[in-house]
Amino acid sequence: MTKTLGEIAALVGGRLAGNAAVLISGATNIESAGAEDITFAVEPHVSEAEACGAAAVILPDTAADFSKPAVYVKDPRAAFALLLEVFTPPLKFPPGISDLAYIGPDVRIGQGVTVMPFAVVDAHAVLGNRVILYPHTYVGQYAEIGDDTTLYSNVTVRERCRLGQRVIVHSSTVIGADGFGFTTSKEHVHTKVPQVGNVVIEDDVEIGAHVGIDRATAGSTVIGHGTKVDNLVHIGHNCRIGANNLIVAQTGISGSTVVGDNVTFGGQVGTVGHIHIGGNSVYAARSGITNDMPEGVFCAGFPTQPHQEWLRTQVILKKLPELLKRVTELEKKVARYEGQEK
Amino acid sequence: MTKTLGEIAALVGGRLAGNAAVLISGATNIESAGAEDITFAVEPHVSEAEACGAAAVILPDTAADFSKPAVYVKDPRAAFALLLEVFTPPLKFPPGISDLAYIGPDVRIGQGVTVMPFAVVDAHAVLGNRVILYPHTYVGQYAEIGDDTTLYSNVTVRERCRLGQRVIVHSSTVIGADGFGFTTSKEHVHTKVPQVGNVVIEDDVEIGAHVGIDRATAGSTVIGHGTKVDNLVHIGHNCRIGANNLIVAQTGISGSTVVGDNVTFGGQVGTVGHIHIGGNSVYAARSGITNDMPEGVFCAGFPTQPHQEWLRTQVILKKLPELLKRVTELEKKVARYEGQEK
Amino acid sequence: MTKTLGEIAALVGGRLAGNAAVLISGATNIESAGAEDITFAVEPHVSEAEACGAAAVILPDTAADFSKPAVYVKDPRAAFALLLEVFTPPLKFPPGISDLAYIGPDVRIGQGVTVMPFAVVDAHAVLGNRVILYPHTYVGQYAEIGDDTTLYSNVTVRERCRLGQRVIVHSSTVIGADGFGFTTSKEHVHTKVPQVGNVVIEDDVEIGAHVGIDRATAGSTVIGHGTKVDNLVHIGHNCRIGANNLIVAQTGISGSTVVGDNVTFGGQVGTVGHIHIGGNSVYAARSGITNDMPEGVFCAGFPTQPHQEWLRTQVILKKLPELLKRVTELEKKVARYEGQEK
Repeated sequence: MTKTLGEIAALVGGRLAGNAAVLISGATNIESAGAEDITFAVEPHVSEAEACGAAAVILPDTAADFSKPAVYVKDPRAAFALLLEVFTPPLKFPPGISDLAYIGPDVRIGQGVTVMPFAVVDAHAVLGNRVILYPHTYVGQYAEIGDDTTLYSNVTVRERCRLGQRVIVHSSTVIGADGFGFTTSKEHVHTKVPQVGNVVIEDDVEIGAHVGIDRATAGSTVIGHGTKVDNLVHIGHNCRIGANNLIVAQTGISGSTVVGDNVTFGGQVGTVGHIHIGGNSVYAARSGITNDMPEGVFCAGFPTQPHQEWLRTQVILKKLPELLKRVTELEKKVARYEGQEK
Repeated sequence: MTKTLGEIAALVGGRLAGNAAVLISGATNIESAGAEDITFAVEPHVSEAEACGAAAVILPDTAADFSKPAVYVKDPRAAFALLLEVFTPPLKFPPGISDLAYIGPDVRIGQGVTVMPFAVVDAHAVLGNRVILYPHTYVGQYAEIGDDTTLYSNVTVRERCRLGQRVIVHSSTVIGADGFGFTTSKEHVHTKVPQVGNVVIEDDVEIGAHVGIDRATAGSTVIGHGTKVDNLVHIGHNCRIGANNLIVAQTGISGSTVVGDNVTFGGQVGTVGHIHIGGNSVYAARSGITNDMPEGVFCAGFPTQPHQEWLRTQVILKKLPELLKRVTELEKKVARYEGQEK
Repeated sequence: MTKTLGEIAALVGGRLAGNAAVLISGATNIESAGAEDITFAVEPHVSEAEACGAAAVILPDTAADFSKPAVYVKDPRAAFALLLEVFTPPLKFPPGISDLAYIGPDVRIGQGVTVMPFAVVDAHAVLGNRVILYPHTYVGQYAEIGDDTTLYSNVTVRERCRLGQRVIVHSSTVIGADGFGFTTSKEHVHTKVPQVGNVVIEDDVEIGAHVGIDRATAGSTVIGHGTKVDNLVHIGHNCRIGANNLIVAQTGISGSTVVGDNVTFGGQVGTVGHIHIGGNSVYAARSGITNDMPEGVFCAGFPTQPHQEWLRTQVILKKLPELLKRVTELEKKVARYEGQEK
């Protein structure tokens, strides 16, 4: 596909500086961009972008003069995202249910559904309209998948779990495995507590690859609408995660923890179970959250502390060898005076 | 299904306080419980439970008077687990081997086995009685699966691995992938060491989703009987994990490490390889175990220290900014005397 | 298979000490080795190996006299690796493409390929010569798999990704899931940035189980030749990992990070995104890398510091309670003098 720079400026609602007839055939990142590509730059990289190989650059409308053709917009990232979509048309799959898929008895299936080879939709499950199931997905008994939801290859949705609309689940993720619940005898024998609840994923959630979200012991483990979960995240049974969270890769949230809305967990964060974490907060990567947390904090460390305090502690930790020397020096001096006094 | 409260008290061997004729149609957690449900409470939550919506509550036999119908038992969790099972009848799958599964040559299959669509049992494998294989499971060549063992969807058991009886393996777990073993030349070229051993999982083990247990270079990686492994755990090649361990989510145990019986690893624990970790111990979440460890310890931290010491260190770390000030103050005072002395 | 000790010495190019006619039928680790097995030992374990049950032992050519039959070589590990392969013949799979696999339209397939039941090779994909696809693998549209590459069961290679020659990918790994990229409105609504790039895996890479390597937003996420990746590793979108890295289990490398050649990341390491990590370096387990790093370092800790400094800090941390006491003692003494002065 090819578009003129003029067409692109109109498409993203931007101000064009340069030849409107320049032909653009792709959108890509600044290192890869060639003579028919458009790319984008934001501060502090705008001036560096003059040296790139692209035909034109999308820039913030606050940027100064630029030596290449440019399109000035309010949000260059959003404009670039739009162009990525324009220049990479979606894949084509044969519509309908593959003869090589398995559909169990009493399954209800909406309009415009795509079910690829070797997908399994087990008995009594429900698929909404325009659901896409990649190969080797498993939708368990009585599970429900909302409209416009996509499950990539090897995804498991266990029995009775419910996914909302426009949910995206990446490959090999498991929704609704049994929670880690046991009673333990004095002889250290662990007996399984049946995990008969389910998982409810609300609308517009995206879940990365290899995420495990365990079903509740009873009731539901809930992921709130608009929340985005990165790869290799663990969410324990009976958690209730709020709306519009960002949960970065390899984070683990222990069972029965309740999280408010608009919380960001950096990578490799961990929490204990059975706590309340207030909304509108940011936890830096590697935070270890061991207690109830209020709304609106920016924390780091294990155990967590306010981010500024954590930074200060890191600085002091680096000074510890010097501090040790200073104390030893003080001791010597004081000992000398003590000797003089006697 | 519906039962009277009297029937329920008899079932769990408890003492009934309240109307034995009350009808109960479900068991669920305290937040979700409605007018036909039974739930449970333990201290310090017993008095709060009086405000819940349940028809009746299972309580510890040491609990005081209670304003709702109640069943008093020694272990409310165990009684509740039993009721969860009673009120959630198991799913029904067509028995036998699906026409859509693939069974390789020379496979031996026991009585009462369920093999679902698109499962693969490769050549020379052995399935015991009442084994259940969900869709997209792969049982490799010469692998053996013991009686009453269940593999959920997308589980892989590689060639020659052996699983005991009553083992449960959750979706997407991989048993017997090659260990991470290489020889490295001076030019930094890594050459694979063949991994020709296997994995042996003993009886009554439960393994979460996305667990990787690597096959031994030679010999066996072993998971002892009754051990329970949570999601996203890594167990390296040639590890020997004892019986009745609890290994919580995202823990990694490096290769050739030997662990005793009855050890609990909290979430996100890590160990180096080639160490011995004594039995009857607890390692708090995030512990980093870098040396051989004795029996019977309760440790935390990285590197690990006794849990009490770790708590003390955390308190002191918070006092570091103040300590720094105190030392600076002392230096000023001592400098003043030094000035006076001269 | 059985070989004489003389044949084995010739095979590994070693010096035989003992009876060349001794029959050997297996190679295994020292704990498991029986009367017909050969094993190996390196210092400081050579003298202990005299007590093992093996028929013969491979030893470093610098080792002293030994009471059992022995084969002396320069690199016992490499010799042992060779023997593991000799005594464990590879599994046999029916060659060709299983009738139970699904091959999409316009797929190109090389010579000597093995495609097992329920593998899916989607439209326009390319498989090189001698590629092996285990059951339940998914090769997406326009993806390319190089000669002699093996994908174990449940592996996903998403559309347009490219794997080189002699690549090994272990079960349930996902190559090319969407990167974690969103734009966020003031109202905390996260909007997906299309991820239209791909992943390029160069020759001789081995990737463990449950690894997630995300596709680039635009351009490519690259894993350099000869790099080996352990289980449960996360590699974010647009990363460029150099050649011959070793990335140990549960490590996470955030998006757009560039890593040089010959870097070792111990287990559970984490990095922030958008940094440059120089080549020829070692990062100890649990390192947290938060800034650009030069070539040729050996670091540990979070934030990282030189490994020697980190060790020193650990020693001082253990002394903190004592340090606190020493400062309190000093304060008392100085206060006493202050009292005297007045």
